[in-house]
Amino acid sequence: MKIKAYGIKEKGGKAEPFYYERSLGENEVKVKIIYCSIARGDVQYISNDWGDTKFPLVPGHEIVGAVEETGSNVTTLKAGDLVGIGYQLEACFECEFCKEGNEQFCAQQKVIGVDCYGGLAEHIVVDNRFAFKLSPALHSANYVPLLSSGLAVYTGIMKAQLPAHSVVGVLGAGGLGQMAIQFLHKMGHKVYAFSHSLEKKEMINQLGAEFILSSNPGSLAALDKKFDLIISTLNVEYDLDAFLRILKPRGQFCVVASPLKKQSISIGLLYDYAQRTIYGNYVGSRKDMVDMLDFAAKHNMESMVEVMPFSEMNEAIEKVQTGAIKIRLVLKNQE
Amino acid sequence: MKIKAYGIKEKGGKAEPFYYERSLGENEVKVKIIYCSIARGDVQYISNDWGDTKFPLVPGHEIVGAVEETGSNVTTLKAGDLVGIGYQLEACFECEFCKEGNEQFCAQQKVIGVDCYGGLAEHIVVDNRFAFKLSPALHSANYVPLLSSGLAVYTGIMKAQLPAHSVVGVLGAGGLGQMAIQFLHKMGHKVYAFSHSLEKKEMINQLGAEFILSSNPGSLAALDKKFDLIISTLNVEYDLDAFLRILKPRGQFCVVASPLKKQSISIGLLYDYAQRTIYGNYVGSRKDMVDMLDFAAKHNMESMVEVMPFSEMNEAIEKVQTGAIKIRLVLKNQE
Repeated sequence: MKIKAYGIKEKGGKAEPFYYERSLGENEVKVKIIYCSIARGDVQYISNDWGDTKFPLVPGHEIVGAVEETGSNVTTLKAGDLVGIGYQLEACFECEFCKEGNEQFCAQQKVIGVDCYGGLAEHIVVDNRFAFKLSPALHSANYVPLLSSGLAVYTGIMKAQLPAHSVVGVLGAGGLGQMAIQFLHKMGHKVYAFSHSLEKKEMINQLGAEFILSSNPGSLAALDKKFDLIISTLNVEYDLDAFLRILKPRGQFCVVASPLKKQSISIGLLYDYAQRTIYGNYVGSRKDMVDMLDFAAKHNMESMVEVMPFSEMNEAIEKVQTGAIKIRLVLKNQE
Repeated sequence: MKIKAYGIKEKGGKAEPFYYERSLGENEVKVKIIYCSIARGDVQYISNDWGDTKFPLVPGHEIVGAVEETGSNVTTLKAGDLVGIGYQLEACFECEFCKEGNEQFCAQQKVIGVDCYGGLAEHIVVDNRFAFKLSPALHSANYVPLLSSGLAVYTGIMKAQLPAHSVVGVLGAGGLGQMAIQFLHKMGHKVYAFSHSLEKKEMINQLGAEFILSSNPGSLAALDKKFDLIISTLNVEYDLDAFLRILKPRGQFCVVASPLKKQSISIGLLYDYAQRTIYGNYVGSRKDMVDMLDFAAKHNMESMVEVMPFSEMNEAIEKVQTGAIKIRLVLKNQE
């Protein structure tokens, strides 16, 4: 079948109609796109920041749509079902990682932007095991950012196995950071959000965190050894040592994003009088996705989003590229 | 009482007789020193590498001795008992960490070199809870390095909770590295030791590891994603990214030593397609010490040591300072 998508032909280019051929495999579903977000990750692919973008690129890795057709082996989804799709579209389901339910580490996995065309399209074809049926509580545009940002931060937080009422810091208050604050607050932890932008204070307070101006060095020193967990959503350089110092003994530092340049670290801070851990979290498993969507539905985990029509996709991409938007941006397909 | 020790009066100075007054607290024991090691940590204190040495310094933080006197509250040790003493000499036994048995994180802790005089002395006075009774299997000089190096690497390894027959890398084959190889080999793991010194190959093989010449960059690339755990004992700069890349998904990187300078790291390697962890290990708890000594006694965990008499302490210190000795150095008190 022919899929109509919106492709970017070269580094930094504009999205324009782009058609590709795709058959429907026996385990696959064809999904009519309703919503698709444009996030920092998408614009990083467009500008080929990581050097692994394949052009033409069809961006968009948080997708909500309606199932239109199902492959012959598909039993759990039917036409009309509303589904959410994240970053990962395929896995082998046979390797050691897939067998234990950690498909996100499968060496054969396919992800949007690197291996597959994404959701800025009229349709997408995807393995039914990566199309997650959405409960009616999650049908609005406000839940679209859960599907990748939400999965990454939720799984990252769960990995820390925090005791109740922990003290947690969130670095950065963009899309990932806002989501992290909400999850942590709704889990009952005490949340501090570090941001350079004083104008984000009110929003951060509304989401459930205390605001700390990270450009004030004194504010960090006063927090010496306070934190059980700090989760970094920053894609710009920061003083990693300063944040390691304010972790309690056995405190954890989780990264779900990264500056393009190398960071520097005093290795001794990881052990001296302490025993600190830095870990990364890469998306999540299918089980993590289901758990996260359940949690989000139960706790009304709405994101703050601006919705724009597909017809303004290039304006939308530019808004994210230039940082003109401080909340998440979701495109709505009106065809 | 007056304690005769051997003190270093200034940065880089020589050890010479030094007397200090010390009373015997109700929970303390006075120990006659038999063995005391001189390790990299000691010479780093002598040259004040970390900037926190207090002079006069009495080095020596792996000590074996015989109990001579006991405080009025001491019930588990008696005169004549052979005990081992590590880096930590005191804790408050009242804070949250002490109460849960993690005295190594106590904010009131006292450690040799920073807060207390060490084992290069005729006697030392120490809380009985930090004097560990040694089984007869551990009475020789070969077991002295267990008491701090052994504790740090054993606890670091145990923290990884490795499945049986894991693949583990050890960076550096000095005192800590030799110990790490032995523990890992005797635990049944497959061990690779990375060293720049081809002349260490035979020793590394004898200890139970395969030798990998770390100055050959091709040797690392060929090991892509092979390791469950890598433990770094290096105090010189190394290519952290290169070692993170050869960890399996969910692989762990443990640091028990640190270069003086900051290291650089590509944060993305911690999450991208993986989910890797870097953690530090700081000595260990009293329970860890008991477990480690049990393991060592059961598995004949002898270290390769050179024994020198106390009368040659300054020659011994110089040997460690200049790197002229490739195995551990233990001083024997002949008084």
